[in-house]
Formats: sequence, structure tokens, C-alpha cells
Amino acid sequence: MKRIEFFFDLSSPYSYLASTQVEALAARAGAEVAWRPFVLGAVFKATGNTMPAAVAAKAKYMLTDLARWAAHYGVPFRFISRFPMNAIKAHRVILAGERAVAGKGAVLGRALFDALWVDDLDVSDDTVLRALVTAAGLDGEAILRAVEDPEVKGLLRENTDDAIRRGAFGAPTLCVGDELYCGNDRLPFVEAALRRA
Amino acid sequence: MKRIEFFFDLSSPYSYLASTQVEALAARAGAEVAWRPFVLGAVFKATGNTMPAAVAAKAKYMLTDLARWAAHYGVPFRFISRFPMNAIKAHRVILAGERAVAGKGAVLGRALFDALWVDDLDVSDDTVLRALVTAAGLDGEAILRAVEDPEVKGLLRENTDDAIRRGAFGAPTLCVGDELYCGNDRLPFVEAALRRA
Repeated sequence: MKRIEFFFDLSSPYSYLASTQVEALAARAGAEVAWRPFVLGAVFKATGNTMPAAVAAKAKYMLTDLARWAAHYGVPFRFISRFPMNAIKAHRVILAGERAVAGKGAVLGRALFDALWVDDLDVSDDTVLRALVTAAGLDGEAILRAVEDPEVKGLLRENTDDAIRRGAFGAPTLCVGDELYCGNDRLPFVEAALRRA
Repeated sequence: MKRIEFFFDLSSPYSYLASTQVEALAARAGAEVAWRPFVLGAVFKATGNTMPAAVAAKAKYMLTDLARWAAHYGVPFRFISRFPMNAIKAHRVILAGERAVAGKGAVLGRALFDALWVDDLDVSDDTVLRALVTAAGLDGEAILRAVEDPEVKGLLRENTDDAIRRGAFGAPTLCVGDELYCGNDRLPFVEAALRRA
């Protein structure tokens, strides 16, 4: 089956925007989505890149641009009050959920993106995470314990290293086979690549 | 009449891509285009931004991304052999041409972008510039003399300062009234803004 690898960091607002579209896009093209959380800070460090908000004029523009994209997609969005935030534990929750039951990674990914960028919840908080995991139909206690499992930690490192090796320098990064696409604004190119595949 | 202010630097490949689309876009929306060359290096310096190619992974990706956009638009494109290049004299030629005959700025802008990104010519060379100006139906000698005219120099500085003041941090930057759009990839938003205007 055709496949999109969706590399994202929950703390990235453009990753949130892409998360609202990627499943519908895949469905239109008869493809499936692999939700692959990664550590954007490590990607920046490895490539010498900096977060866009480091340039004041860019940070100001980004707020307008994000609102335009949200309106364009017709999705809710508000900038999180805790920024930059550390999403590592939440990323491991997604990976542990997927390991427990295939398909739950996508469910948790969507739920966590909405918790952050719609409801402005603190997704580094265990109570918040447990509630989201339970709502996703999984065992909250077991998944929260699993975030300390070396195998789960390794999956997150592996996603990050794999994305860097393949040329990622920001988030989101989407791959269709060997083709790499950077940014929410390249989703139409991703869809075209799937149709060609 | 509705109006797009198109701030660009000839040395910017994404500005070239936008230059191939902006007139048709404006025509569809019943708008006119003000071609406003600016000095991208000065914009970077004023905002603390860096050129995308400064990050190696981004530079590598950009080459692929540019080729994808050219294919998407159906326009020729090849990366220039003189990069980064100084486009200041060519920018002044555009401004002097527009001052001589209204509308010739757009003609010269398109001709110079194609000379660079299609034919890989050296547009800092007087012979090349003179030939392009003559082909645009203007007096080559007079326009080349005008690039040293303080008024023409002032127009280029004014475009650059105006863009920075309004929030630009890269190229191309497009404005519709008070709304500012950064990047060739935001042209659909520019078109939507014109339709709302």
C-alpha cells in the first residue's frame, strides 16, 4: 500500500496544521500514514538550523500566517501559552500507544495535537496524558509506564535519526518513498507524489 | 484599481518562480502589479535573518523544491552559475526603465529574471544589460547612465526600507494593502486576498 511517513513534533504549529489534513489527503490518494514523532530540537541541532521564531520579523509574520492556514483549512487554532515546550514524553506516549495497538499512534497523535493547539493543555502533565490515552481506548497507567521503556525511547531516537539522515531540517517533514517534502505548505506536492506512485 | 506590490530580488530563485506567475494571477483578479526590486541582503541584515542556503540540508532540499515548483508551473529553470550574485545594478535598471516609461519596469523585471534563471546570463555585465534594455524598447545608453542617478539609487533604498518597515524578512514578499505575504508558496493566499479586496 502507498504510504506517507509523517515526521512531526507536537510543539510545531505547522506540524499541527499538517496533522489536520494528512489523513484525508492519504485517503484521497489510497495511501496510509505512518505517524512518526521526532525531536525537532535535535533536528535543528544536527543541521545547524534555528527555529523560525528566532527572527523577530518572522515570528510576527508566522502568527498571521498560521491564522491564515487555519482559516484556509477551516480548523480551530490558537497559539499555545507554553512555548517552546518539551514534547518528548507525549511523543513517547504516541509510540507506546502504537506499539500496544496498531493504529492508536495516529489516534493519539491527532488527540495530542488538538489538546495542544486547540485546547492549550499541558501535554507534559501526566494527568492530561493519562486522560487522553484512556479516551483513546488504551490503558493509561500501562502507556505512561511505557514512556520509560528503553525500547520506546529508542523508537523516538530512531525516528529523529532517520529523518535527519534522509535530509530533514524542520517540521513537519513528509516522505513518500525516497522523496522528502518539508512543511505543511508542501502537502499538495505530497498528494501529487502519491498519485504518481 | 486593486494592486499587488511585488518585492523581489533578482538573485532569489523563489522570486523568479513568483515572477512567472504574478502577472497572470493579477489579471485573473483584476489587479495590477507594482514591481518593486529590493536588496535582499539588506533585508537579511536588518532582520537578523540568513539566506536559506546557509543550512546545508536546506540548501540541498531547495534544489529539489525549486525543480518541483518549476515543473508544477511548467516554466524553465536552472540554478545560476554565479551565486550568490549582486543584482543591485540590474535592480536600478528596472527602476530607471519604469521611470522612463511606465510599465517598462515589469517588462524589464521579467526579462532579467529569465536572463538569470533560464539563460544563466551575467546580469551585472553592462553589455548584457544594454541588450536587454534595448530589447525592451528603451534607450540602452540612457538607462545604463541612469543607474548612477541618485534618484534611481534612492528608489531602490526606498523599496528596501519600505519592505523592512512593513515586516519583510525574505524574498519574494507580496503586499495587498496592509496584508503581507512571504514566499512564492503564498501566491494562492495573495490571490484570495485580491478577491476579497
